[in-house]
Amino acid sequence: MSERLVLHEYSNSGNCYKVRLTAANLGLPIERREYDILKGETRTPEFLSSVNANGRIPVLQIGERFMPESNAAMFYLADGSDLIPQDRFDRADMLRWMFFEQYSHEPNVATLRFWLAFVGFDKLSEAQKALIPAKRKAGEEALGVMDRHLADHDWLAGGRFSLADIALYAYTHVARDGEYDLDAFPALLRWMDRVASQPGYIPIEA
Amino acid sequence: MSERLVLHEYSNSGNCYKVRLTAANLGLPIERREYDILKGETRTPEFLSSVNANGRIPVLQIGERFMPESNAAMFYLADGSDLIPQDRFDRADMLRWMFFEQYSHEPNVATLRFWLAFVGFDKLSEAQKALIPAKRKAGEEALGVMDRHLADHDWLAGGRFSLADIALYAYTHVARDGEYDLDAFPALLRWMDRVASQPGYIPIEA
Repeated sequence: MSERLVLHEYSNSGNCYKVRLTAANLGLPIERREYDILKGETRTPEFLSSVNANGRIPVLQIGERFMPESNAAMFYLADGSDLIPQDRFDRADMLRWMFFEQYSHEPNVATLRFWLAFVGFDKLSEAQKALIPAKRKAGEEALGVMDRHLADHDWLAGGRFSLADIALYAYTHVARDGEYDLDAFPALLRWMDRVASQPGYIPIEA
Repeated sequence: MSERLVLHEYSNSGNCYKVRLTAANLGLPIERREYDILKGETRTPEFLSSVNANGRIPVLQIGERFMPESNAAMFYLADGSDLIPQDRFDRADMLRWMFFEQYSHEPNVATLRFWLAFVGFDKLSEAQKALIPAKRKAGEEALGVMDRHLADHDWLAGGRFSLADIALYAYTHVARDGEYDLDAFPALLRWMDRVASQPGYIPIEA
């Protein structure tokens, strides 16, 4: 990787941690620029015009080009490495778990963590409070889908550690911040230990 | 592709149409098996144990193996074809738009279509009705992000037609079913015409 890599991020975000954890596993140096999403720093005219028109972090800057969407940034960093399976089915199966993560897991598991541990229950709108039971249930279903798969597979896709594991580890391992009971998912707990023992592992606070 | 391909689907779903449109562009024959999601046919014990533990369609069956998640199934079908850019940045950029589709577009644009055109407003729960204004606004924002990009790009990624265009076309071109005003997005209208003129194009009703 000859071009300069800069991660535009909010470091407490699991989506940003995914990109850092991928870079750390691959031994790629990455600069970091912090934005406070609680203060709207990713919705300024400057951010929208130069970094991401969708107003979200993370965005991976590669030289002078910008790559939004955490899972796409991970794919860019890992393209050609052992973190992406070479087999056609396994490669698509890795992406299957990464799309599952963004559709069925993150909007529930990550959102309750953000609302309860970062915004705070008392500061939520009534509309947000009303959504908590449905997000709790959908998040538990997503964790259950993972747990049943991991009961007889060491890894999510392709029989080895891949981007799918990094993508789903990021918010699963801090799901207790959103008051999810991870002890109900024993295979998930063992898998998280396996992820944390991979080369180059860094904690979310690093 | 030597293995038999079967699409487990609900044919009105844009997510299922994506997979059919990809196969049609590539000239791949695909069998179809229909499930009525309004009757819970993807939540039966048999479906959950044999097709998709996450209880959703589409699922692409490849021989005896199953690939959930529409965008992963598309990637499997198109792997190695011109529908996926060969350049590293462009390939990740295509995925960037596909993750944007599942996170920022589908939960708003597709959900309002399903609620208003298939379930019907009168049959929605009070909780669903209360979500409509936020989904309307978020869907318009997603359409706006696309429209601004397409104002000076013919295609979403890599300078040519790719899976990103198919993925986002599927629910955008029927967004009026969800009472979105597409005439507010002129570049989007021109891009939809370009998509519909690609080789192998089939309409959602096909």
